[in-house]
Amino acid sequence: MSATQPGRLMSAEMAEQPAVLRRLLDEGAGPIRETAARIAARGPRFVLLTARGTSDNAALYAKYLLEIQAGKPCGLTSMSVTTAYRARQDLAGCLVIAVSQSGGSPDLVASTTAAREAGAITLAVTNNAASPLAAAAEYHIDVLAGPERALPATKTYTAELLALHLFVAALRGADGVRAARPLPDLAERVLAREAEVRQLAARYRFAQRMVLTSRGYGYPTAKEAALKLMETSYIPALSYSGADLLHGPLAMVDNVSPVIAVVTDGPGGEALRPVLDRLRERGADLVVVGPGERVAAASGGFALPGDGLPEELQPLLQILPLQRLAYEVTLARGQDPDAPRALAKVTETR
Amino acid sequence: MSATQPGRLMSAEMAEQPAVLRRLLDEGAGPIRETAARIAARGPRFVLLTARGTSDNAALYAKYLLEIQAGKPCGLTSMSVTTAYRARQDLAGCLVIAVSQSGGSPDLVASTTAAREAGAITLAVTNNAASPLAAAAEYHIDVLAGPERALPATKTYTAELLALHLFVAALRGADGVRAARPLPDLAERVLAREAEVRQLAARYRFAQRMVLTSRGYGYPTAKEAALKLMETSYIPALSYSGADLLHGPLAMVDNVSPVIAVVTDGPGGEALRPVLDRLRERGADLVVVGPGERVAAASGGFALPGDGLPEELQPLLQILPLQRLAYEVTLARGQDPDAPRALAKVTETR
Repeated sequence: MSATQPGRLMSAEMAEQPAVLRRLLDEGAGPIRETAARIAARGPRFVLLTARGTSDNAALYAKYLLEIQAGKPCGLTSMSVTTAYRARQDLAGCLVIAVSQSGGSPDLVASTTAAREAGAITLAVTNNAASPLAAAAEYHIDVLAGPERALPATKTYTAELLALHLFVAALRGADGVRAARPLPDLAERVLAREAEVRQLAARYRFAQRMVLTSRGYGYPTAKEAALKLMETSYIPALSYSGADLLHGPLAMVDNVSPVIAVVTDGPGGEALRPVLDRLRERGADLVVVGPGERVAAASGGFALPGDGLPEELQPLLQILPLQRLAYEVTLARGQDPDAPRALAKVTETR
Repeated sequence: MSATQPGRLMSAEMAEQPAVLRRLLDEGAGPIRETAARIAARGPRFVLLTARGTSDNAALYAKYLLEIQAGKPCGLTSMSVTTAYRARQDLAGCLVIAVSQSGGSPDLVASTTAAREAGAITLAVTNNAASPLAAAAEYHIDVLAGPERALPATKTYTAELLALHLFVAALRGADGVRAARPLPDLAERVLAREAEVRQLAARYRFAQRMVLTSRGYGYPTAKEAALKLMETSYIPALSYSGADLLHGPLAMVDNVSPVIAVVTDGPGGEALRPVLDRLRERGADLVVVGPGERVAAASGGFALPGDGLPEELQPLLQILPLQRLAYEVTLARGQDPDAPRALAKVTETR
């Protein structure tokens, strides 16, 4: 079927996102609050996050939330430490969060089991309550995104972001639902602007490579957009935090390396200002996804009105035009976003 | 001077590495052991590592050591959490290690100061005992690499690796010096094989992009080699852990995307086997830096005899041909490795 209608599955799942977010706010928030309260009562001192691919970018988003909003130091784990080296760590007082769309990767199950045996509080965040990962962890959060059939994950990513936002808010005893309420409607408005994204996509029809950059809450969006572009269009897309970009990779950026900057309205977006100035000095083609005045100062972009949304929720909207961009660039190149070569839905790494 | 002799500074500093390692073993190991003993006595529960650029790759190496050998859960910090968002974290029981060649980056100084105020044990690892970072941290380790004048860091990277190895060994009450003793001589032998690297460099003269991959202890080497290639030759070099490569980016690898795999002799190198099989199936041009039999099974490579060196010390040798590769590819492209455009030695990010 995808041979006759390239990208049909990915397109349908991108379009589902407002409904997925609404469902999670209506039906998911209660159970998430209860789970968070039980975990908060055990007073975790620090948090380790484990994931791969798209879910790893959701985990990075959670890391910012946990550190900035909950004051909990965090780390992203290297799974090989457990699965290849069989390291024994003392994880008492540690919350280990495994994030996975399918909940089926054997290495995630193995590392979550090992963490539980090492004394950690374990939480799985998945789109499948019946998955082995959900069973392996002590607690489980269902992101309720419905079956995902497209190989490039889209709706499970935004669902994971919202679930993690609700969890971290509840962990510190705050109400995460209220601020997130406008998201489904805002997401609908952003998704409706697909003609704008198609126009932007023309710019990258012949791009040999791309650089994505951001800072703070926007950085997971830059990484996820790079991954989406790579796995669908095969354009090598490098992502850097703005600060890291200045340490070396900047040398690679010139007038033939297009740059996309994800600019949040808040401290992260402010911290990116000097980086974007440097990129402009170097003559880089700079496209901004973010506030209108930042787009106006760039070579082009996709303006996202703040709409009073707190900075930490903006990533849920900012990824939408970038998912669509990957889709449109892939179609423009005569490829099928639903059929990336070399990918399987559950990647079995050990 | 570099105009008449391109790469003179980088070449001289790469050649200094055996002497730098020898000095660190002879003069540095004692003070490192004392510092580690003082920190061990305070019983840190978990470790946060903070760095940028090349030093960030050394920090990642330390993360593997700390998790695998010392059983301490670790995280790599996002500096913006402190510098842009001014998050307040409770860091009691946490060891914060800041790694920096110059010890001069204002954001590292700020985040180390903030960590100390938040109750962390703070340690700076630098090549400048008189630096602001060394003063900001409670403890300091000097990597004793001597002044580094080339913009692409080489000798400070291997010195940071060895210093961190000695530190983690001492932290768990082990003798790190003995296993590391053969390193200076082995490094000399590897460095003498520059003709082999020059031949390998010819392969990448016209490469549009490169992918580097590894797992476990070899992964920081893959990341550092990618950074070195990018900052000197400007070839977009993407680095992935082997497991992450299978989650999306594999779609990008085909017969025109050369892959370099860093293969350690040990569990990390073993875990990479299925990834390299997949790459071969996809017809990738695969060059291996690692054991002879793994090189023989690839399209080419640079064989490194194990010489009985434990896996965790192999990264100190494996980076050497890759530093040289960046240098040779850059010269072959008519550029000067000493003068990468857009780079400054102390990058001032905030």
